[in-house]
Amino acid sequence: MEENVVSVGTHDEREAVARLFDRYNFLALPVVDGDGRLVGIITVDDALEVLSEEVEEDFAKMGAITPNSERPYLRQSVGEIFRMRIPWLLLLMLSATFTGLIITSFEAALAASVVLTSFIPMLMGTGGNSGSQASVTVIRGLSLGEIPYRRILSVLWKELRVSLLCGVALAVVNFGKILLIDGLLMQNPAITPLVALVVSVTLLLTVVAAKLIGCSLPILAGRLGLDPAVMASPFITTLVDAVSLVVYFTLATAMLGL
Amino acid sequence: MEENVVSVGTHDEREAVARLFDRYNFLALPVVDGDGRLVGIITVDDALEVLSEEVEEDFAKMGAITPNSERPYLRQSVGEIFRMRIPWLLLLMLSATFTGLIITSFEAALAASVVLTSFIPMLMGTGGNSGSQASVTVIRGLSLGEIPYRRILSVLWKELRVSLLCGVALAVVNFGKILLIDGLLMQNPAITPLVALVVSVTLLLTVVAAKLIGCSLPILAGRLGLDPAVMASPFITTLVDAVSLVVYFTLATAMLGL
Repeated sequence: MEENVVSVGTHDEREAVARLFDRYNFLALPVVDGDGRLVGIITVDDALEVLSEEVEEDFAKMGAITPNSERPYLRQSVGEIFRMRIPWLLLLMLSATFTGLIITSFEAALAASVVLTSFIPMLMGTGGNSGSQASVTVIRGLSLGEIPYRRILSVLWKELRVSLLCGVALAVVNFGKILLIDGLLMQNPAITPLVALVVSVTLLLTVVAAKLIGCSLPILAGRLGLDPAVMASPFITTLVDAVSLVVYFTLATAMLGL
Repeated sequence: MEENVVSVGTHDEREAVARLFDRYNFLALPVVDGDGRLVGIITVDDALEVLSEEVEEDFAKMGAITPNSERPYLRQSVGEIFRMRIPWLLLLMLSATFTGLIITSFEAALAASVVLTSFIPMLMGTGGNSGSQASVTVIRGLSLGEIPYRRILSVLWKELRVSLLCGVALAVVNFGKILLIDGLLMQNPAITPLVALVVSVTLLLTVVAAKLIGCSLPILAGRLGLDPAVMASPFITTLVDAVSLVVYFTLATAMLGL
C-alpha cells in the first residue's frame, strides 16, 4: 500500500485498508495488483464492515471469550455460548494454581497475622484494574495504529511515570484509610501503623508492576505475531496477582518479623 | 427515524443513525426536520467516525478509564493520563473495603484453617472472569442493538443455563485438581476431600452469581438511563468478590465445623 499514490494492493491487510478510510474520509479506493494494474475497487461500506468485525473480536478477547460474531447473542444456543467461554475459564482457573502455591508457601506468616488476608482482595483488585487500564490503552493504541511497535520504550517510560503517580496517590489514601477505618472505626487491634505501611508499600509496587506488565505484554504479543488483544486483562491479572502476593509476603515477613 | 421512509430526523441519536449505515450499507441518507423537510444529508464517513468514537468510549469504560479520545496516547501528558485513571482506581480500591470486612468477620475460621486462604485468588479470579464474559457480551449486544431491554428475562435464563454448565465443569475439574495437585503432589495434609468440596461448591455458586450479576447490571444501568458500559468488569468484580467470599466462609464454617 503506497500512501502517496492513493490505491491499495491486493495483498494489503484488510484492517490496514479499513483504517485508511477511517483516517482520510475516502468513499472508495482502487485496488491494484503487483504491477499496478487496476483489479477492482473497495468502498467505504466494506471498510465499515471490516472495522466492526475487528472491534467485536477485540471486545470478545478482552472479555476472555472465543470470538464468534456470526450470530447475535439471543440466537446463540446455550451449548454454543458454553463452548465459547469454558476454555478460557478453565485455563485461567488452572493458572491460579500458582497464586495458591505462593500463599501456601507463606502459610506460617499468614497464620501469625491473619489480618494480612483481609487486604488480599484489595491488592489483587487494584493490581488487576491498574493493569487493565494500561493494557486496554495499549491494545487500542496498537489497533488504531497510534502506537508503533518500535516505541515500546516510550510507552514503558510513560507508564512508569503514570504508575508512580497512581501508586503513590493510592498508597497514601490506603494508609490513611487502614488506620482510620479498619483500625480506629472498626477497632481492630491487629491493625498497626506497620501493617498499614506493609500494605501500602505493596500497593505502590503492585500498581507499578501491573502497569508495566499491562503495557508491555500486548506489545510483546504483537511483536511475536500474536494478536495483542489476547494479552488482555485476564492473563495480565493472573501474572500481577502472583507478583503482588510475593511482594506482599516478602515485605510482611521482613517488616513484621513473622 | 422511520425505517420505511429511508431518512433520519434532526433529533435522532447519532449512534442509532450510524448503526443504520452499518446494517444497510447506505452511502448517504437525507436528514429531515419534524415536518419532513429536507435539511441536509449525512454520509457514511460521518457514520464511520461516530462508530469509532463510540467504540473507543466503550473500550475505555471497560478498562476503567475516563474516556478521552481527543489525542493519541503518545501525545497525552503523564498528568493527563493520571487524571483519566486515578478516580476509578481510588473508587474501586475503597470499595474493596467491604471484601476486607467480610474476611475480617470470618477471621476465626481462617485462623483455624489457613489453607482456605490459598483458594481465595482462584475463586475471585474465576468469578471476575465469568462475570466479565457475561457483561462484555451483554454490553456489546445492547450497543449493537442485538439485545432489546425488554428481553432481560431471556438473557437471565440463558446466562443461568450457561453458568450452570460452566460452573459444574469448573467445579469438577477444580475438585480433581485440588485433590491431585494440591493434596497428593504437593503433599499438603490440610487438603481433605471436604475442603476440596467446599471450594468446588463455592466455585459453582460464584460462577452462577457472577454471570447473573454480569448480565443484569449493564441492562439495569441502561434502563436507568446510564451507559451500560460503566457497569463493566471492575464494578461487577467487586460485587462478585463479596458474594463469593460470603458463600465461601459460610460453607466452610458449616461444612468444616470451624
